[in-house]
Amino acid sequence: MQITALAGGVGGARFLRGLCDHLRRRSDLSDARLTIVGNTGDDITMFGLRVCPDLDTLMYTLGDGIDESQGWGRVGDTRTLQGELAAYGVQPQWFGLGDLDLATHVARSQWLGQGATLSEVVARLGARWGLDRLGVTLLPMSDDPVETHVVIDDEDGRRAIHFQEWWVRHQAGIPARTFTAVGLDRARPAPGVLEAIRGADVVLLPPSNPVVSIGIVLGVPGVRDALRGCAAPVVGVSPIVGGAPVRGHADACLAALGLPTTPDAVAGLYEDFLDRWLVAPGDAAGMRRRRGLDVLERPLLMRDRTSAAELAGAALDAALDAGPRRG
Amino acid sequence: MQITALAGGVGGARFLRGLCDHLRRRSDLSDARLTIVGNTGDDITMFGLRVCPDLDTLMYTLGDGIDESQGWGRVGDTRTLQGELAAYGVQPQWFGLGDLDLATHVARSQWLGQGATLSEVVARLGARWGLDRLGVTLLPMSDDPVETHVVIDDEDGRRAIHFQEWWVRHQAGIPARTFTAVGLDRARPAPGVLEAIRGADVVLLPPSNPVVSIGIVLGVPGVRDALRGCAAPVVGVSPIVGGAPVRGHADACLAALGLPTTPDAVAGLYEDFLDRWLVAPGDAAGMRRRRGLDVLERPLLMRDRTSAAELAGAALDAALDAGPRRG
Repeated sequence: MQITALAGGVGGARFLRGLCDHLRRRSDLSDARLTIVGNTGDDITMFGLRVCPDLDTLMYTLGDGIDESQGWGRVGDTRTLQGELAAYGVQPQWFGLGDLDLATHVARSQWLGQGATLSEVVARLGARWGLDRLGVTLLPMSDDPVETHVVIDDEDGRRAIHFQEWWVRHQAGIPARTFTAVGLDRARPAPGVLEAIRGADVVLLPPSNPVVSIGIVLGVPGVRDALRGCAAPVVGVSPIVGGAPVRGHADACLAALGLPTTPDAVAGLYEDFLDRWLVAPGDAAGMRRRRGLDVLERPLLMRDRTSAAELAGAALDAALDAGPRRG
Repeated sequence: MQITALAGGVGGARFLRGLCDHLRRRSDLSDARLTIVGNTGDDITMFGLRVCPDLDTLMYTLGDGIDESQGWGRVGDTRTLQGELAAYGVQPQWFGLGDLDLATHVARSQWLGQGATLSEVVARLGARWGLDRLGVTLLPMSDDPVETHVVIDDEDGRRAIHFQEWWVRHQAGIPARTFTAVGLDRARPAPGVLEAIRGADVVLLPPSNPVVSIGIVLGVPGVRDALRGCAAPVVGVSPIVGGAPVRGHADACLAALGLPTTPDAVAGLYEDFLDRWLVAPGDAAGMRRRRGLDVLERPLLMRDRTSAAELAGAALDAALDAGPRRG
């Protein structure tokens, strides 16, 4: 069975690790393989090195190397190199890069510099984390560089800053006028991305940010059409519970689109291809009825690895229960 | 007073730190400034990062950040990042780069990538090490990339390998047929290099490797002519004591040129511009007489910082005693 998921960083990674944990206990699904299409819109070149935060968070989480307390970065990491960069006057320091983590970026930058595609780099990095042994194929949404910028108004007037500066440095505290994903309109889906959607038995949307994570992946030309046209049921998990994001700043992102922070507003962003939508207990009542969309209430909070596996299992069961769209 | 020195790595750095120590005690020379023209022929791109071993050894040594036990690298450094690169299968591992040291290479590579010249990079890095406060200006011999390669014969036939691979990985244990400095014939002296020689009151050649350190600097078009034509006395310190190099593999380098490992052979490489030549006690007897060259016996071993300062003071005194060549 082929499961395909679109994902951003921390929330998506925890959900998908939960899915892998769940699948290990499902003897009826021992042939299941998971392909993850990861957002690359928040990639950034930092200190001359190419950093792919969402792909790395997915890789480290699935490979048991993640710093659980942060949700990103490597467990047990140190900040020797970045501290020394500061001594040289090299900015910024607001984007924390540990020494172990930096090895990923050095390796990636070297390989990219040698002409490898990002897909090839992700595969080489993923080998060290045993993704293949887990039955997981991690794909970047595109091998073409895409960078999400945030248009803000501040004392310097209206200007665009990199998504990471807005998200990490300013903690999304400056109102976003809009998001622009530089390069997205001409980005080609990475090899295997459209095939993974078209050939899927199940498509899952983890509770990732609907605007700057899933929304960016959906903006890669061809991806949205593939989701509309695929035979697999598409099941999503709301990243909003009771009017607030479970984690991160999805509220600030939805506000930039003029949308309220509700499971209904997020479902509206996916309504042209979404079949089933998992919301938290009590949240179904706030959903508008949409033709072809089933809303299911399930416990959505991933408090630990066990509850994440239960949520992923519930999403998978919802998809298997829905069955293929046609045929 | 303007002192100008040509230098390689460890030996040159220890000698020149000794010179700075000596100058601090010379109230009659409180206006002395030292310009060091550093070899860049052993620069190498490692893991996509530009590494300048000799310049960094000079900088770390003068700035009191050197690992004394190695002679190169940063004191108290760790190998976290490089170990993790190995986990990703990234080679080579024979060139040891600590985390603190890597910060230098990351900063340099970033700045070079942004269009800075190597001279500008060296100045920015040197600021962190207080070189200006020491009265020291560190210059690369050239802003143009030069890489010394070593032609060897092994089971793969005759081939050229990077100098660092020969020096560090093979410990100069494979006979060198010849050295080729790629890019040297068209390298332009870095800004200030020729001026520092032409405007010098004293020119010193520390006991650096005469073939792959000083020899490469001398190969930058214009440098040798500037030394021949300058008014300042040129005083050199033999890197060979009693038929063996004090440190490193100068014997293997001289052999590639068909030369014996003697102070006389090294003096021969400099004879067109050398005025005074410091050799170890007992070594003067083996020197051929050369017109215009005074040979002086002095204790050459730099066992510690004190003896290095004494040697540097002896070289400086030899120059001051010689006086300008003309005028």
